[in-house]
Amino acid sequence: MAKATLPAKATAKKQGSTALWDFIEIEFKGPSARNPFAEVKFGATFKLGARELKVPGFYDGNGVYKVRFMPDQTGDWTYTTYATVSALAGQTGAVTATDAAKGVHGPVTVHPPYWFQYADGTPFFPVGTTAYAWTHQPSKLQDKTVEILKKGPFNKIRMCVFPKDYTYNKNEPEEYVYEGKPGSFDFTRFNPKYWAAFEKRIAQLRDLNIEADIIIFHPYDRWGFATMSAAQDDLYLEYLVARISAYRNVWWSFANEWDLMKEKTTADWDRYFKIVHAIDPYQHLRSVHNCRAFYDHNKAWVHHLSVQHSDVERVDEWRTQYKKPVVIDECCYEGEIQHNWGNITGEELMRRMWETTMRGGYPTGHGETYLNPDDVLWWAKGGILRGTSPVRFQFLRDVFADAPVNELSPEKLGRMYPVLAKKDAWYMYYTGVRQPSIFDLELPSEGEYVVDIIDTWNMKIDRLKGTFSGMTRFELPGKPWIAIRAVRKK
Amino acid sequence: MAKATLPAKATAKKQGSTALWDFIEIEFKGPSARNPFAEVKFGATFKLGARELKVPGFYDGNGVYKVRFMPDQTGDWTYTTYATVSALAGQTGAVTATDAAKGVHGPVTVHPPYWFQYADGTPFFPVGTTAYAWTHQPSKLQDKTVEILKKGPFNKIRMCVFPKDYTYNKNEPEEYVYEGKPGSFDFTRFNPKYWAAFEKRIAQLRDLNIEADIIIFHPYDRWGFATMSAAQDDLYLEYLVARISAYRNVWWSFANEWDLMKEKTTADWDRYFKIVHAIDPYQHLRSVHNCRAFYDHNKAWVHHLSVQHSDVERVDEWRTQYKKPVVIDECCYEGEIQHNWGNITGEELMRRMWETTMRGGYPTGHGETYLNPDDVLWWAKGGILRGTSPVRFQFLRDVFADAPVNELSPEKLGRMYPVLAKKDAWYMYYTGVRQPSIFDLELPSEGEYVVDIIDTWNMKIDRLKGTFSGMTRFELPGKPWIAIRAVRKK
Repeated sequence: MAKATLPAKATAKKQGSTALWDFIEIEFKGPSARNPFAEVKFGATFKLGARELKVPGFYDGNGVYKVRFMPDQTGDWTYTTYATVSALAGQTGAVTATDAAKGVHGPVTVHPPYWFQYADGTPFFPVGTTAYAWTHQPSKLQDKTVEILKKGPFNKIRMCVFPKDYTYNKNEPEEYVYEGKPGSFDFTRFNPKYWAAFEKRIAQLRDLNIEADIIIFHPYDRWGFATMSAAQDDLYLEYLVARISAYRNVWWSFANEWDLMKEKTTADWDRYFKIVHAIDPYQHLRSVHNCRAFYDHNKAWVHHLSVQHSDVERVDEWRTQYKKPVVIDECCYEGEIQHNWGNITGEELMRRMWETTMRGGYPTGHGETYLNPDDVLWWAKGGILRGTSPVRFQFLRDVFADAPVNELSPEKLGRMYPVLAKKDAWYMYYTGVRQPSIFDLELPSEGEYVVDIIDTWNMKIDRLKGTFSGMTRFELPGKPWIAIRAVRKK
Repeated sequence: MAKATLPAKATAKKQGSTALWDFIEIEFKGPSARNPFAEVKFGATFKLGARELKVPGFYDGNGVYKVRFMPDQTGDWTYTTYATVSALAGQTGAVTATDAAKGVHGPVTVHPPYWFQYADGTPFFPVGTTAYAWTHQPSKLQDKTVEILKKGPFNKIRMCVFPKDYTYNKNEPEEYVYEGKPGSFDFTRFNPKYWAAFEKRIAQLRDLNIEADIIIFHPYDRWGFATMSAAQDDLYLEYLVARISAYRNVWWSFANEWDLMKEKTTADWDRYFKIVHAIDPYQHLRSVHNCRAFYDHNKAWVHHLSVQHSDVERVDEWRTQYKKPVVIDECCYEGEIQHNWGNITGEELMRRMWETTMRGGYPTGHGETYLNPDDVLWWAKGGILRGTSPVRFQFLRDVFADAPVNELSPEKLGRMYPVLAKKDAWYMYYTGVRQPSIFDLELPSEGEYVVDIIDTWNMKIDRLKGTFSGMTRFELPGKPWIAIRAVRKK
């Protein structure tokens, strides 16, 4: 499945196989009368040795039921279905999980306490963007977005399940999550056509090694999706998990701006987390994004902080407070619109992202709000990138590509600038809006360090001659946004 | 005295005259034995109608005693000296105070609660710089500084009485406040030569309409001036007030970074304020400057806040908390040195100063720390200005030159940007690091407003065609640091 965009098929009671962290989709025929979406509970329990994974299935319309299984271990798995209707219960089969395809590292998980890694142990350093409603645009525009993402710097994107009703977000999507139409949706019957189209995009992202940070609820709604009953919310969560959790690149973002959804209580949010925690066989990353007020990220079911905040200098404080990874998913977007969340300069966005990174957080706050005649703003609809920041996100990502990212933490050194370091091995200082032409580098007195001067805006790296240790004073170019990197020679 | 740099002289018991807010210096002969600086208390009480001003005098060496009188009211004043020695007591005379010279507005005082004005009621809008030790440099360099200040944008400068021992501040001054030399100063005997030179510079500033924000104590000391006894401190305060309070442009800044002077207690600072409050006949502005911790500016003897802080967005908070003018005397300097207080860009300094102003504070935080072969950094020693900000301080000052500055306060309008306004008359919005190309201007629905788009960095003002009221959407250039000014047509 590493390259295919449609899942492999297997027949019930038959053998199937799939590579590790890809998935196999197993179809079953079952009842289509009344409302199977709401009335039939169904799934399969997969076993390998002492391990058992309970994988929820889903109804895909026309009497077709499916289970999608993403093995997290190679070997010969067996399964037995379970269901509230006898036609679907007790069916058995086997799935051989072969070695992972080349370049497939598995789902991203937390490397405690502050970092991320893929399931195979490869560190994951998120560099992310947001295009909330890109999958609710015309198909051609979605294709364009995928093409742009393919060339772009991002390995994570925030995107909504539900369409968005907001400034620059007024067009109706082609399909909806539910059967029906505006004004008469049936919140107990899902629309398989919508989901197939949505999944196609998740699969494309997966094949580009881009994590899909799936926003489950959001307040910007004119269709009623933000104000369903508790039972409807829970049914939606179950369907969502059953359909898309087999995509290894899925992250669960329970909300965009949870604190603006006034109809929901903290108990509701706790319940959403608990449900997904209970039924997701793969335990994809779970977080919830704020507007102003933070959810209590100390709760056990939260994997990481998905933060909206302009004062990214506080990342280290939040890191210390919650002992979890801090992802800055929003700190105002590069753009030019009238709203203050969407009109900072590329320079300021990159400064905030470097500051975030230097304080041990993750630079996932890209978004663009540049006007254009078609009203296609990246942050809303995807399309093309117009800003000055994407190429610099790539540079940031490249700079950290060979860093020991999962051993880096902020260090108190030198008093003047933020320092990110792996002690006695790797140090980075960052000047931000400061433009020193003299710099005092504080390094351990043991060991020899190679020092690079990194102009993060002009994307230039200059290596100083010789090696360094202890306190060294040297010249800098007298420009802002300079990172100084010192790496110990082996 | 408006143009002279040396005071007029008068003989005791004789008539003299001076223009309003200039001063007359009246000499007396008295004892020179032992230590008149410490042992003789002397001064004159000036009377005009029902009013009486007790003006302290000072010993100037060689048996010469002086009283400097700056009338704050026109008319025929009389005086009688008082002294702890009979030779100096009971002498009488008269001084005629004539109309103020052209362009002389008197000392600056508070226009309650948030603003400043000259004694004649003219609003004073401070645009300030810092050159801590400029009067402790060779005379030629001081002359250069005066020449540069004359052409420059500043109407206020922070400067120390004592020399400074600090990075880039290591040279010995030519003269010291006290008799003696390093290691053997007599903290009870002043050095008139030093004071005459210092006063010459205060007079030059006065004649350029530049307020001298005199820093009385500071922690950066290798001579013992920061650690004198309480009695020595008090003697110094008395001498300082007696010598220079007749210069109308004097402001009393009790410290630079009071909270770093660990030998002094809050009770000491209270005492300093109380002494000067008690003996300064002209009640020059009193403030005290912090490094980190604020002095309690609510105390009655504090006229205004002299703040060091980078988060100038908090100005409105401090304004509300203390109900006094907020002067941002330090928010990091434009420059390139290794220290983080001295290496922000001109762009960032100007952003902080505009943000300060927009929140109802005063932009007095200019200072420059650019390196040069002579090690003459403006912030320390004066000299020449090298930065990109001075011309933009001039622009800022010009923009506010015809604004109703003493009726402006922050307003909550439009949610997006800081707004400074005189209700129903004058409004300004400021975009800071934001670069909107669409802007929603919220104005009263009554009245017609002329709107200017002010590019604060490129120093351009473009007037929109027509007049506006209520809500108006228009285009902006899509650049940062734009101010939008709306002025009601009469």
